[in-house]
Amino acid sequence: MPVVVEPLVWVDVALKVLDQRRLPAEVEHLHCTRATEVADAIRQMAVRGAPAIGIAAAFGMALAARAGEDLTAAEAVLAESRPTAVNLHWALARMRRRIDAGADAAALLNEAQAILAEDLAQNRRIGELGAALLPADAVVITHCNTGALATGGHGTALGIIRSAHASGRLREVYAGETRPWWQGARLTSWELQQEGIPVQLMVDSAAAHLMRSRKISAVIVGADRIAANGDTANKIGTYALAVAARAHGVPFYVAAPTGSFDPDCADGTQIPIEERPGSEICQWRGAQLAPAGVAAWNPVFDVTPAELITAIISERAVVERPDRERVLAMLAR
Amino acid sequence: MPVVVEPLVWVDVALKVLDQRRLPAEVEHLHCTRATEVADAIRQMAVRGAPAIGIAAAFGMALAARAGEDLTAAEAVLAESRPTAVNLHWALARMRRRIDAGADAAALLNEAQAILAEDLAQNRRIGELGAALLPADAVVITHCNTGALATGGHGTALGIIRSAHASGRLREVYAGETRPWWQGARLTSWELQQEGIPVQLMVDSAAAHLMRSRKISAVIVGADRIAANGDTANKIGTYALAVAARAHGVPFYVAAPTGSFDPDCADGTQIPIEERPGSEICQWRGAQLAPAGVAAWNPVFDVTPAELITAIISERAVVERPDRERVLAMLAR
Repeated sequence: MPVVVEPLVWVDVALKVLDQRRLPAEVEHLHCTRATEVADAIRQMAVRGAPAIGIAAAFGMALAARAGEDLTAAEAVLAESRPTAVNLHWALARMRRRIDAGADAAALLNEAQAILAEDLAQNRRIGELGAALLPADAVVITHCNTGALATGGHGTALGIIRSAHASGRLREVYAGETRPWWQGARLTSWELQQEGIPVQLMVDSAAAHLMRSRKISAVIVGADRIAANGDTANKIGTYALAVAARAHGVPFYVAAPTGSFDPDCADGTQIPIEERPGSEICQWRGAQLAPAGVAAWNPVFDVTPAELITAIISERAVVERPDRERVLAMLAR
Repeated sequence: MPVVVEPLVWVDVALKVLDQRRLPAEVEHLHCTRATEVADAIRQMAVRGAPAIGIAAAFGMALAARAGEDLTAAEAVLAESRPTAVNLHWALARMRRRIDAGADAAALLNEAQAILAEDLAQNRRIGELGAALLPADAVVITHCNTGALATGGHGTALGIIRSAHASGRLREVYAGETRPWWQGARLTSWELQQEGIPVQLMVDSAAAHLMRSRKISAVIVGADRIAANGDTANKIGTYALAVAARAHGVPFYVAAPTGSFDPDCADGTQIPIEERPGSEICQWRGAQLAPAGVAAWNPVFDVTPAELITAIISERAVVERPDRERVLAMLAR
């Protein structure tokens, strides 16, 4: 039996967070009982993945209410924990509406649990819709980790891959290792291995060569924020995959729940791109990969323009050739 | 004063090889006195970079002659040490011509020294020719290590960058870290740092995002083998850079001495591409990056088709819009 991958579980009085920084070597958990602890877990990337960040923030508000903390301050500290993922703001806004309607701590906990359960259900639907787009015997490329670890369960892009495997149409997955945090090497390959889904890891820069050497059915990625026109912010390296996919005629799919859309962003130029310390590139577990003192440029995300995206798959619909009109129509459904 | 970077030095009776696997943390040398030791150093990547491999192999033949080894056997073991770089075969063929002409051990050592000295002179010329192609205040991207460490000195692509810096037209270099061996992080950033040339390291997958976000003057890379039509095998990730450069209108330059050309290869499909063990991706210094047992695809090189190359710069000429006719004309000069 595969291990059930649960990044976020409510246990008694705490949010139990699977510390993804030590995976796959160590399976350790943080027990958060205050909103600031949840914000720290997000900032330090113990929990990552746009949907999982949103869910964690919702539980953070429930924890703040239980502890009698100032809810406005708690909301502010959570909102600032990571700048790019919009699910964070979406989940906090949903909790705020319940707070403003007079919800107590128990009701807020129920709301966070509902957000978690809905995310899982949405991902299963995204999986079905996306798997139907793939040919038989599909060979796909994915990037970063968009699986159970990044969400409330099943996953977005990896949810499509799971669903395709379950329905017998998946032959093989190539996973980019996803420098500098190795989400592909550490997390995606681990999740796929747990379930016996055939995967080959590769360095991120090999994907274009792979598309030139072998017939690839699709590139499937997640999203940290999707603008109203379909421009998509996702893990650094996503844009390079989209450029290569276009050059090789490979379909490029983005999988994301409606909570990852930000209709207030007209296009990708309005999405803030987090830059993290260069040390994340130059060092690994305290050892220097690069000489001390070398500068490094470390953007965490990039923006893929809508014109390079074959389709965006949400739990509501497949938006082919996304543009402002089609994205807003899907969101209005 | 910058440290003089010398990957290969003849000392008394041995070839002293700078062990590049431990750089930049440790500066250690191997002392090779037999051809098999040189072949091991090449195979295990203590010495790497197409021109440096060729020079090392030439010294390997000189060592075999000194030790009274079977020269045909020595040549065979050196020829098989790495499959992709053509300089290896070029240098061995040059030594073979001297052997067939009756050269003794001292004459073979002189020939190897000549190959080393000529490579340095060629690189200085490549540097001049290439730097003249760059605009003032140039911002360039490079990949892998093509510097003094990869050659007899100065470097090919990095030689152009050195020459551009010396002539005041270089603003900044972005160096891809070059997974899985980190030649960019460990070697290129170290060489540039030694000489005070402004460099920013980045993950390889960030280059396309960089080209979209900032005006880039050129991508400059080296070559492990150039076919008669200009198709170029180079470090994995080079092709992805070429695809992104074309998509963004950025000039894409290949810098290589004539010893890196293989007119017997009609095009890139005939260049053998080395694949190394997946463990080079999954592990680092004994630690698992990916879960044990995960498969990994580890092609060391890729082929960039000539039509994506703005110009190839050899010590003889700049070959713009390379094709079979122009490449062969340059080689015939």
